[in-house]
Amino acid sequence: MNLPMQAFLTQYLKLRSVSLAADNEIDETAAFLKEQFTKLGATTSRILTTDAANPAVYAVFPAQSADAPTLLFYNHYDVQPAEPLDLWKSDPFKLKMTDTHLYARGINDDKGELAARLAAIQRLQAQGGLPCTIKFLVEGGEEQGSPHLEDLLKQYADLLAADFCLWESGGRNEQGKFQISLGVKGGVAFQLSVKTADFDLHSSLGAITENPAWRLVQALATLKNANDEITIPHFLDSVKPLTTTQKQLIDSAVFDYAAFAKNYGITRPATVPADEIKEALYNRPSMTINGFSSGYEGPGIGKTILPHTALAKIDLRLVPDQTPAETVRLIKAALTAGGYDDVTVSDFLGEPPFRTDPDDPRVQEAVALARKTYGDDDVQVELNSPGSGPMKYFYDINHAPIISCGIGNANSAAHGPNENVAIADYLSFIDYLTQLVGELAA
Amino acid sequence: MNLPMQAFLTQYLKLRSVSLAADNEIDETAAFLKEQFTKLGATTSRILTTDAANPAVYAVFPAQSADAPTLLFYNHYDVQPAEPLDLWKSDPFKLKMTDTHLYARGINDDKGELAARLAAIQRLQAQGGLPCTIKFLVEGGEEQGSPHLEDLLKQYADLLAADFCLWESGGRNEQGKFQISLGVKGGVAFQLSVKTADFDLHSSLGAITENPAWRLVQALATLKNANDEITIPHFLDSVKPLTTTQKQLIDSAVFDYAAFAKNYGITRPATVPADEIKEALYNRPSMTINGFSSGYEGPGIGKTILPHTALAKIDLRLVPDQTPAETVRLIKAALTAGGYDDVTVSDFLGEPPFRTDPDDPRVQEAVALARKTYGDDDVQVELNSPGSGPMKYFYDINHAPIISCGIGNANSAAHGPNENVAIADYLSFIDYLTQLVGELAA
Repeated sequence: MNLPMQAFLTQYLKLRSVSLAADNEIDETAAFLKEQFTKLGATTSRILTTDAANPAVYAVFPAQSADAPTLLFYNHYDVQPAEPLDLWKSDPFKLKMTDTHLYARGINDDKGELAARLAAIQRLQAQGGLPCTIKFLVEGGEEQGSPHLEDLLKQYADLLAADFCLWESGGRNEQGKFQISLGVKGGVAFQLSVKTADFDLHSSLGAITENPAWRLVQALATLKNANDEITIPHFLDSVKPLTTTQKQLIDSAVFDYAAFAKNYGITRPATVPADEIKEALYNRPSMTINGFSSGYEGPGIGKTILPHTALAKIDLRLVPDQTPAETVRLIKAALTAGGYDDVTVSDFLGEPPFRTDPDDPRVQEAVALARKTYGDDDVQVELNSPGSGPMKYFYDINHAPIISCGIGNANSAAHGPNENVAIADYLSFIDYLTQLVGELAA
Repeated sequence: MNLPMQAFLTQYLKLRSVSLAADNEIDETAAFLKEQFTKLGATTSRILTTDAANPAVYAVFPAQSADAPTLLFYNHYDVQPAEPLDLWKSDPFKLKMTDTHLYARGINDDKGELAARLAAIQRLQAQGGLPCTIKFLVEGGEEQGSPHLEDLLKQYADLLAADFCLWESGGRNEQGKFQISLGVKGGVAFQLSVKTADFDLHSSLGAITENPAWRLVQALATLKNANDEITIPHFLDSVKPLTTTQKQLIDSAVFDYAAFAKNYGITRPATVPADEIKEALYNRPSMTINGFSSGYEGPGIGKTILPHTALAKIDLRLVPDQTPAETVRLIKAALTAGGYDDVTVSDFLGEPPFRTDPDDPRVQEAVALARKTYGDDDVQVELNSPGSGPMKYFYDINHAPIISCGIGNANSAAHGPNENVAIADYLSFIDYLTQLVGELAA
């Protein structure tokens, strides 16, 4: 069997574009893509750079008609490290095909996605030409958290002008349904630290001397209560009420807490009542201690020191219209109001939340077409991913709808060993996308 | 200049009796002491063992008179590791003498103490014989936290019968005064742990899934309030009121918080009002987070996981009549009452608090003699050390007073590089102890 775009995909997967590794093939991969886009008929194919960022590749495949709409396809050519290598059943940098599946690092996230998109373009070209102009922005720092993407989008906003945006990931959900996701939660990560002395002390001095770990515990306890509810004043002030359609999307989602808990060995009940789990997952902000570190962390007990520093790494997930900067401002204000000015907030990094309007007619066209392609009962529209991503930066330059859907599934192991996609999903998505470009032109 | 017991001390310091090191000379040191005690006139000198413990050395130097009282001298022959070696200005396992000081690992803690005690015995022998019977118990696991000492004392209680006990450490305090310490705070150390899942999760699941770090933060926040006060119910019920003499001992102590804070680079005020610092240090229990560990503790932020475990290492210092076991019971009860049964308390290790009665006539004789030897204004009696030790186990077998005093000073660096004592203090203590044995016989 020969897959659409198989030769391209084979070469592309070989390139070790691991942005988190010091020794990688980032530049080679960008150059490869620039050349391939040209070969496939792009009239523009160029490298876009900003200071300190990995090169991004920009390409334009023009429509037959000058007044056709423009679609912007966002992808990234960088991949997660393949380690631990011993858990792979095949070479992660070599495409492996079985009768049903494709395996390789990046086959789902997201080199395979790009190949499927190019296959759709090839098919449209074979059918006589593109009904829409298609622009690609393929960045090289997504697995690093896209640290320079916002700057890049602002710098090249004119080039990236579009009427519709296709996001970089997606596929079938836990229930096997083809999912069209319409947004992301926001995210903000930072450190809270307390330093009380220059050295660790003997713990007998705990009778009179402040303990930074206790101090941080008490400060944190003012930000969330024992019911796991965030208690930062004004934190929810900017949260927008959901529309009827948005509420319906949450209602229509499926989340099986029992199966999820079993999968992860979770022994505790959910932190919200059963009938609020989906609402919490999609539309309630969360605040997570990602890490906590203080004092003696070696084996055993009896090293009875009073530490001199304590550090917590925290992230929050945000919903519209909360913002990373305002969230950090409210946390700082809460700490100050609680008398915890000695708790330092540092290193913050964030992405705003974003949701495409589910009532937008182009979104509804995409959904209707999906139901035709995948089956009426096999399509799920997701209000937003519970995770975060740089989606709003794309919205800010074009004010165009953004949807996320693709070739993966719940067992694709996007960041893990034996990353895979089903060949059937690869092929269906090419069908779907080929038709979608036509629909969006109409 | 030739020191009393210099040849013994030189040989003794050479032996690498580092109980915390895998490759050590523990057995050789015990054998050496057994032989030396015999050579110096002990009528009994033998090794005492319990299961799994380093050998202890027991020796008896009998009094001239059969009805003389018996003094028990507690020492330990094991020493702390000498590392970091590059900070030593001389070989840690070789006695270095300057005009004023002696340097070596163990010269203060506590090989030098033993040499001074033997020098006092030699002098009494030269003066015609011992006015009291002197028993030595020299253990080999003090730097490991004396894990088997309680068992050893119970097993050999008959051999160790005595009317008075001299503890293993002591000397001049921060103010340069010769200090007689009459007790120790108790201590109990344990781990609090929370496990919520088998793996770390993506932090977006923090909207519905329990976070073990938050859980531990909330549990800890029920045990201490924001004013750093312990809030464990019934925790203070067993604390005994101080006698007038005990209160006077606290009043007479000197603690310079400003100097202490400067020394450690402490930027925060004491956790108690200025006029309560000494009371807190000597007579208020404390609860210290020695270490806290959860989730991602590497550099930077953005690894936005929801950890599956959190661990805190805790120790409390206790005052009479609090006990380690009861303290752990109360903490477990407080966690249960607060709904934190999922917080596991494990690995507890403790030593009870103990205070010798400062009004005991033998203690008063020892103090009066110290004032004669060191000067009226140069003696400080301490209610108890703010630290912990296995003192009560000795009291439990003999119900005899226990005092702690010796040859060290505030800059002796007992566990650090360039451990030292002043030659003048070594010699004064031999004078003092020689006379004390006579006084206690009277």
